[in-house]
Amino acid sequence: MSLITVGTVAFDKIETPFGKTDKVIGGAATYISLAANYFTKNVKLISVVGGDFPKDVLANMRGRGIALDGLEIKQDEKSFFWSGKYHYDLNSRDTLVTELNVLADFQPVVPESYQDCEYLMLGNLDPNVQMSVIKQLKKRPKLVVLDTMNFWMDVALEPLKEVIAKVDMITVNDEEARQLTGEHSLIKAAAKIMEMGPRFVIIKKGEHGALLFEKDKVFFAPALPLEEVVDPTGAGDTFAGGLIGYIAHTGEITFDNLKRAVIIGSAMASFTCEKFGTERLLQISEKDIDRRIQKFVDLVDFDILLVE
Amino acid sequence: MSLITVGTVAFDKIETPFGKTDKVIGGAATYISLAANYFTKNVKLISVVGGDFPKDVLANMRGRGIALDGLEIKQDEKSFFWSGKYHYDLNSRDTLVTELNVLADFQPVVPESYQDCEYLMLGNLDPNVQMSVIKQLKKRPKLVVLDTMNFWMDVALEPLKEVIAKVDMITVNDEEARQLTGEHSLIKAAAKIMEMGPRFVIIKKGEHGALLFEKDKVFFAPALPLEEVVDPTGAGDTFAGGLIGYIAHTGEITFDNLKRAVIIGSAMASFTCEKFGTERLLQISEKDIDRRIQKFVDLVDFDILLVE
Repeated sequence: MSLITVGTVAFDKIETPFGKTDKVIGGAATYISLAANYFTKNVKLISVVGGDFPKDVLANMRGRGIALDGLEIKQDEKSFFWSGKYHYDLNSRDTLVTELNVLADFQPVVPESYQDCEYLMLGNLDPNVQMSVIKQLKKRPKLVVLDTMNFWMDVALEPLKEVIAKVDMITVNDEEARQLTGEHSLIKAAAKIMEMGPRFVIIKKGEHGALLFEKDKVFFAPALPLEEVVDPTGAGDTFAGGLIGYIAHTGEITFDNLKRAVIIGSAMASFTCEKFGTERLLQISEKDIDRRIQKFVDLVDFDILLVE
Repeated sequence: MSLITVGTVAFDKIETPFGKTDKVIGGAATYISLAANYFTKNVKLISVVGGDFPKDVLANMRGRGIALDGLEIKQDEKSFFWSGKYHYDLNSRDTLVTELNVLADFQPVVPESYQDCEYLMLGNLDPNVQMSVIKQLKKRPKLVVLDTMNFWMDVALEPLKEVIAKVDMITVNDEEARQLTGEHSLIKAAAKIMEMGPRFVIIKKGEHGALLFEKDKVFFAPALPLEEVVDPTGAGDTFAGGLIGYIAHTGEITFDNLKRAVIIGSAMASFTCEKFGTERLLQISEKDIDRRIQKFVDLVDFDILLVE
């Protein structure tokens, strides 16, 4: 049950009200792969980095069993770099620096060894790159999941719509769902997105949890209230990684199993928020994950008798 | 198991992006009493109105079994009037008009027939009025719940803190919890509020649900995603009414039962949002309530096996 993850592998420099970092390892595909890897041992990455990207980080990923045959290394160029500063409430941020570098003319190549893939996670990237990966796959995967963001709605809406029409599931945040559909109600927005193609829609609400939709069914997964959110960077990617990793592990594409997958994604995302960058995500044990999932179970657990 | 509700009974004039009203019936005690009345038939109201308040509305409340002995009618004065306009996202609003009228020098009087009260719901009002009701009760109720808002933190923080020290449970929204404690993390904010007195803290997050805290326990109740929120006015009061009404009905002050009460409050609040003012709240049947509660059960229901 192999899983391809596509997205950036990059450097981030992050400032929050609680601290700041120098350049740390980031990128959507990094978070997705690391999170998914806790659930499925057959993760295959597609991305691009420059000669400046640390070899030990790649060795660590390889050591975890993440295949890097699809990771292009452009020795004479620099890796993608993003720097951002979060506002007080951590729900919004300003981008300070975006250096595309190797990403500027990225042409993804799907290696032959990836052609057996059953699950495809398209991390946030130029929709043309996402489409290129879909088109290179000789056999359509069992499930294709798309993550994207408002930036692509602003600058590449038509290519984005073409990708949306080809995927089984999309993850966007609440504001993006509204921007994409012109609907304020998330119920209506989800319905409109389903009309655009995807069978499943996930709307992420950050610290307010996530909604999963299929037809007229809706499931709500809370976010765990944390004592301290240190850095939300990568939380959405980690969510996607836990989600697709769990689906690939279980192989069951039903609403009930996707509910579990959304909880797993939320649990994994809660770890990422606890430290800067990928630091926490690199450290967790299966016991940590079990304990965290139990917290989600307890958080929303109630039994009720209907009013007689 | 009688329940005293204290708060405004008033006129509102409301504008949302989806429509506007003329003067309609509103007020915290109105919403609380109507919602609680679906669960406990022994609701006793304390408030004040002017001679302009419609007699048929009072007759309707009395007809539902809500005792109005504690409702003062100042024939020559006007009822409290509030007018507000909601922003696009319905999460924030501007107050256009506040006419205190009868509220300006309101001195609540607890009638002798109310002295058997076991539950006391202090709706949003001047903390001095809330304290006066607490002090007039000869026997301390089994449970005293306080609702308040940022306005009183701005203009009457010390009297408010004195009331907070005397209650068992407080309901505030997320921004109010942060303002009251100076803590951004809601976990930390809740812990600080518990140190101020209340055993239970409920933090309301509007369309994002509500959190219930007792010591180190936390429960999250989602808000139901609605296709159309017409008017959120009174949703917080309705929440409090459903909550306290259910507690008074069941008489069980345990964390498990309060979890149910928070779900009931959330279900009742979701009705209020569907039409302007109290219109929807006046119409619902027990069957409607049961169906709505079932939606909450389904919304967060999942079963998960921990990672082996």
